[in-house]
Amino acid sequence: MSNNLLKGKRGIIFGALNEMSIAWKVAERAVEEGAVITLTNTPVAVRMGQVSELGEKLNAEIIPADATNVEDLEMVFAKSMEILGGKIDFVLHSIGMSPNVRKKRPYDDLDYDLLNKTLDISAISFHKMIQVAKKMDAIAENGSILALSYVAAQRTLFGYNDMADAKALLESIARSFGYIYGREKGVRINTISQSPTMTTAGSGVKGMESLMDFANRMSPLGNASAEECADYCIVMFSDLTRKVTMQNLYHDGGFSSMGMSLRAMTQYNKSFDEYRNENGDICYG
Amino acid sequence: MSNNLLKGKRGIIFGALNEMSIAWKVAERAVEEGAVITLTNTPVAVRMGQVSELGEKLNAEIIPADATNVEDLEMVFAKSMEILGGKIDFVLHSIGMSPNVRKKRPYDDLDYDLLNKTLDISAISFHKMIQVAKKMDAIAENGSILALSYVAAQRTLFGYNDMADAKALLESIARSFGYIYGREKGVRINTISQSPTMTTAGSGVKGMESLMDFANRMSPLGNASAEECADYCIVMFSDLTRKVTMQNLYHDGGFSSMGMSLRAMTQYNKSFDEYRNENGDICYG
Amino acid sequence: MSNNLLKGKRGIIFGALNEMSIAWKVAERAVEEGAVITLTNTPVAVRMGQVSELGEKLNAEIIPADATNVEDLEMVFAKSMEILGGKIDFVLHSIGMSPNVRKKRPYDDLDYDLLNKTLDISAISFHKMIQVAKKMDAIAENGSILALSYVAAQRTLFGYNDMADAKALLESIARSFGYIYGREKGVRINTISQSPTMTTAGSGVKGMESLMDFANRMSPLGNASAEECADYCIVMFSDLTRKVTMQNLYHDGGFSSMGMSLRAMTQYNKSFDEYRNENGDICYG
Amino acid sequence: MSNNLLKGKRGIIFGALNEMSIAWKVAERAVEEGAVITLTNTPVAVRMGQVSELGEKLNAEIIPADATNVEDLEMVFAKSMEILGGKIDFVLHSIGMSPNVRKKRPYDDLDYDLLNKTLDISAISFHKMIQVAKKMDAIAENGSILALSYVAAQRTLFGYNDMADAKALLESIARSFGYIYGREKGVRINTISQSPTMTTAGSGVKGMESLMDFANRMSPLGNASAEECADYCIVMFSDLTRKVTMQNLYHDGGFSSMGMSLRAMTQYNKSFDEYRNENGDICYG
Repeated sequence: MSNNLLKGKRGIIFGALNEMSIAWKVAERAVEEGAVITLTNTPVAVRMGQVSELGEKLNAEIIPADATNVEDLEMVFAKSMEILGGKIDFVLHSIGMSPNVRKKRPYDDLDYDLLNKTLDISAISFHKMIQVAKKMDAIAENGSILALSYVAAQRTLFGYNDMADAKALLESIARSFGYIYGREKGVRINTISQSPTMTTAGSGVKGMESLMDFANRMSPLGNASAEECADYCIVMFSDLTRKVTMQNLYHDGGFSSMGMSLRAMTQYNKSFDEYRNENGDICYG
Repeated sequence: MSNNLLKGKRGIIFGALNEMSIAWKVAERAVEEGAVITLTNTPVAVRMGQVSELGEKLNAEIIPADATNVEDLEMVFAKSMEILGGKIDFVLHSIGMSPNVRKKRPYDDLDYDLLNKTLDISAISFHKMIQVAKKMDAIAENGSILALSYVAAQRTLFGYNDMADAKALLESIARSFGYIYGREKGVRINTISQSPTMTTAGSGVKGMESLMDFANRMSPLGNASAEECADYCIVMFSDLTRKVTMQNLYHDGGFSSMGMSLRAMTQYNKSFDEYRNENGDICYG
Repeated sequence: MSNNLLKGKRGIIFGALNEMSIAWKVAERAVEEGAVITLTNTPVAVRMGQVSELGEKLNAEIIPADATNVEDLEMVFAKSMEILGGKIDFVLHSIGMSPNVRKKRPYDDLDYDLLNKTLDISAISFHKMIQVAKKMDAIAENGSILALSYVAAQRTLFGYNDMADAKALLESIARSFGYIYGREKGVRINTISQSPTMTTAGSGVKGMESLMDFANRMSPLGNASAEECADYCIVMFSDLTRKVTMQNLYHDGGFSSMGMSLRAMTQYNKSFDEYRNENGDICYG
Repeated sequence: MSNNLLKGKRGIIFGALNEMSIAWKVAERAVEEGAVITLTNTPVAVRMGQVSELGEKLNAEIIPADATNVEDLEMVFAKSMEILGGKIDFVLHSIGMSPNVRKKRPYDDLDYDLLNKTLDISAISFHKMIQVAKKMDAIAENGSILALSYVAAQRTLFGYNDMADAKALLESIARSFGYIYGREKGVRINTISQSPTMTTAGSGVKGMESLMDFANRMSPLGNASAEECADYCIVMFSDLTRKVTMQNLYHDGGFSSMGMSLRAMTQYNKSFDEYRNENGDICYG
């Protein structure tokens, strides 16, 4: 169903890999809402993933590019403006990867070259993207730029490792650049802090299944899905949110405002069943 | 322009007084987006204000009621369901008033009966409204409840007085009830923290004009208007934000994420012009 | 062991009931650090509790008073200044009680008279205490006022009920009055957000034992004890923290900055043991 | 005056340059409170600054080292343990520098090699320091690690540039590592978010004088001085704060909790004097 929220708008979606990707869902919904878009991902992701299918389905050109490379980013914006016929109204940054996590380096044994890569890929690429766009004057007045984040930027989750620091940096960049691009061109920059989502990226996180179960039981509305996240992104790209900027917006079924739910506590308490005495009290001794 | 975002939805708008009111704008936009609504305000506000004009224009029934009175609230929900033909999909709480401010009682000389009134009118009314609705099962599954708040809930502004405490309480109620109504019926409850706005209520705040100037210069996108706030409310009532709950959402042109803007600092610095020496340095001595 | 951190200082401790009370520990430590103090609690608590023992031990006068009653508070400050021989340097507010919780009224069936009592006892009493003190000019320059709070002010915990809203209001009062008392007399006002603690008050909270277990496993340093909280209060009363004001200070072993710890997740996962298949995967079906 | 708060403790202070440095004051106060310490800074800072004076005065060895270099850091911890005769109880990280700011590169024209340097010097050095210490098991159980931060990590200030992002990263590292070092050794890691301070580093920030004036008028207790910050650091190093971890602690006279003070607004309003009409109203037209 469409509400024509993005009618006549031009967008660039970074990071769609396959049907599980949030960026994939955003691309589908953006087109459904009347936008024309280009898709971009790394050359290897374009070759390996199913993004070409998506491109065909949505009639969207795919531009292979390395989001950490300034020249590539210039090319993405130049081509996109050419293909789409004008300045860009919205951009989605859905990019994150930690080589330290991949190499199973724990947080107290980080490789610092890999840490630099984590930060470059997952956070600084956002700055590069915006700086390139601004220098090229590629974003239309009142345009909207979004990146996807996670609550690990505020609260530590075991195993999320240096991605937590990358997300904190990402959110800071959204604020810092949001001020400058806002005052000069009315462009707003925000991050959406999404529930844990079983994407290809998410499935690499240690203990993801358990974490999702816990988050789901903690959140009064349950975990937000990729599809629901896409809806929220559409809203943030639309003209109905033009004064929202420099914000980190939780899209998580309420998780971020929960201390403990009855459902999660009840499940947690089951873990003690074998330690309970005949009165139902927990007895560790 | 309509995107049919609220097509087929039923809503209740508390707090429209006159054309300056945010609630007034929300009512207009809600109907434009396809909703049917009822309007409610205190009997005296209904008599004194222009809300009957609005009712006629929007073909919306006006239900005089005291939002601090449980029986009145029961009547509002009962009548609204009857008039609109079903359960309610969205509710706006745009109610706030401090008798201490009106009586010019400073924060260190509060009258405690008046403080109770401030809290009852501006915050507890939100709890009463939701408790009544839930007991009557008056809100449709996945419904959306919103209240308007202000950054004073987090940061002290001179002269805002006990309204700051009321807003903090209001936001807490949104979280507390958001958990319960969310887990049971999928109903989401949020607050929007709006820029200072020159409504009839806002115009009563001490030094409002100066504050708005400062906030405007601090915010990269400038202060958000009542119309823009209405757009954001529509989005939060729509099905595109169904997993957002227990949040306080800043709609303020970026103000809440600013420490100091160049524009505000430049204006501030002009205040020292008479104290500058020939080199342009500030010299107080 | 004493560091003479409060040598020559005069203090008032509200809320010591028995040996489990945080206020009790603060009283002991304050005297150990060189302060002279008075103790105050409700007449019934003074009769029922062991506070008279504490008074004897610390050579501290006990002043029965209702902290929601302005006249009683005036009497407390007047007597304390008389007994201690001068203006008051520090005050601890360790008061909280919800009649709704006691009467087992759930959050969606609150009695509003009882809600008013919850707010009056647990939050507004803090305002009254400060307003009375300021009108009497009873706090010495650069004095320090503290209240005990809980993370429920920011994040909803099932069963904590309207006490969450009371704590949010309490923390807002600390900010609002911190501004005014700070600018005029250099008096600082803060709240300490303490780990769940098995005091007499804490033991009334539903599922307290389980919650403490979970919080303990989530917090890298484990839950903070009442004794440790007392140490932190001493620090906040001392001259070493004279520029800290309007803050909510987490004293919780790291809980507030945690999303998920390995320890808590491991325990949580045990709850699924009976649902695991031979490969160790969770299988609900 | 000493309270013997650090009696018998061993510490390392990174970043003392001259008498204006906060690290300098912390070193003085730490020794006064009974600690033995080593001092470290870059070789060039050691040669150019007055740190050798400080070393003599405090009887503290100076270890020139580059805090971005892992081998240097290993040497600092090895030497410090040798000199001080045991494991380290507390560490202060007071290091920050942006080559982009020095080269006057605005935030929308960053040099990315320089950004990497900003992050490495100002934030990643903190991770390196802790990782090195942990691998060497150089920190005593229940030790305390502190870094100095600034409110720019949360709120954008014009001209603070990529240092804001560095501070956000720094605070995230404190949380991420605080979890791991806490659970394993009881070591706590926090940041202190200090008022703008006229140190050598601070004096390089654009418009520092005006910013300090504004912050001072906004803060009910005025800006916190370097001396007062040192007191707060002592407290955080002492055994009285052993359950505080993963926190960012504002030491700012209340600034972070202020939206607008009467003093700042009054000054701001003077800027409009020439635009006021005979009635005192602001008239821009």
